[in-house]
Amino acid sequence: MTTLLQLDASAQPLERSHTRRLVRGFLDAWRIRRPHDEVITRDLSRDPVPLIDTAWIAAAFTPAEARTPAMHERLVLSDRLIDEVAAADVIVMGAPMYNYGMPAALKAWVDQTARIGRTFSFDLARGDVPIEPMLHGKALVVLSSRGEFGFAPGGPRAHLNALDPHLAACAHYWGVSPSDHHTVAIEYQEFKDHRHDASVARAHADVLALVARLAASR
Amino acid sequence: MTTLLQLDASAQPLERSHTRRLVRGFLDAWRIRRPHDEVITRDLSRDPVPLIDTAWIAAAFTPAEARTPAMHERLVLSDRLIDEVAAADVIVMGAPMYNYGMPAALKAWVDQTARIGRTFSFDLARGDVPIEPMLHGKALVVLSSRGEFGFAPGGPRAHLNALDPHLAACAHYWGVSPSDHHTVAIEYQEFKDHRHDASVARAHADVLALVARLAASR
Repeated sequence: MTTLLQLDASAQPLERSHTRRLVRGFLDAWRIRRPHDEVITRDLSRDPVPLIDTAWIAAAFTPAEARTPAMHERLVLSDRLIDEVAAADVIVMGAPMYNYGMPAALKAWVDQTARIGRTFSFDLARGDVPIEPMLHGKALVVLSSRGEFGFAPGGPRAHLNALDPHLAACAHYWGVSPSDHHTVAIEYQEFKDHRHDASVARAHADVLALVARLAASR
Repeated sequence: MTTLLQLDASAQPLERSHTRRLVRGFLDAWRIRRPHDEVITRDLSRDPVPLIDTAWIAAAFTPAEARTPAMHERLVLSDRLIDEVAAADVIVMGAPMYNYGMPAALKAWVDQTARIGRTFSFDLARGDVPIEPMLHGKALVVLSSRGEFGFAPGGPRAHLNALDPHLAACAHYWGVSPSDHHTVAIEYQEFKDHRHDASVARAHADVLALVARLAASR
């Protein structure tokens, strides 16, 4: 059995959110092919995870065996979020571009799931590259939407895209290698023209093709 | 008189935060040179601003004269945050790198201050570049800290830096042109070695030099 982790970060409900519809399209298509797979759902907008704070950082950087009960308590949600990532084979992330980057709701999740001793190890004996990932073999599917256009590599706004390179930088925390990181994005949302319509249609087709490919390889 | 906007986004208190100490160093040096300038302070970690949600977006995209009282209410904090930016000549932003990007606390502020009709205008009559900034002539000083090293342009981890390019992409929202965007960053924090000590010393010296330059030009 394959487990999928559904993450939605859009501030908008389904009827107003391209990314939520892409995520739903992905999961609907997946379930047709693989009806017995498990889906864990986590809505980061409706159910926001808190910002990390000094107590969280102190708890996270204290070895587990030395933590006080209050420290363990402080990490309960982070542990649960990381358990969800660890349980997943495929992470399906609805990640709209807000002001060139990820929604704050998604960044809060990133900061809760990037954790020493759980998702990465840190050892200065490794020299100048002290971080190593602890999770492996997962696929990350980023389903995005951008108000303007040209944010893909080589595009006129590629240098303004601070969302996809950021997720690429973080992917190792979730056990995702570059070849298992897939992105489908709708563009031209604010232009509301035929280019937007074409972009929506292409993205939904790309999602179906991606599902076919990923579901077959599981 | 010059007005400075102090933004702190570190999850840590002053004694554990390089960025808070850089911000304090900047402001202390500024006050010595220009004791009568005003400083607006905003602590985004101790006093987090909420995530934008569907009600916020609906209010922001409704023309001001058509907003209901509830919509106006929904934008009160955003209005105040933008008023602070508008009042500022220099924005001094303590922005530590968390997991390759800005803290979620800072992104929440970005999403509250990037607002149509207040910080940018949007007009499809402009063709494929419909956004224009509404604020102008401000300086942005980003004071940052990074656990590893080599995140500056040309460095071995430059491609992983999703913080500084993101702030550069957003700077127009706050009336900052590229030549008025300054960044000073401490590196090697997790290595705790002589390179880190040197980086801290250099950053504090760079801050003093930057204060001298900016304070003289005001």
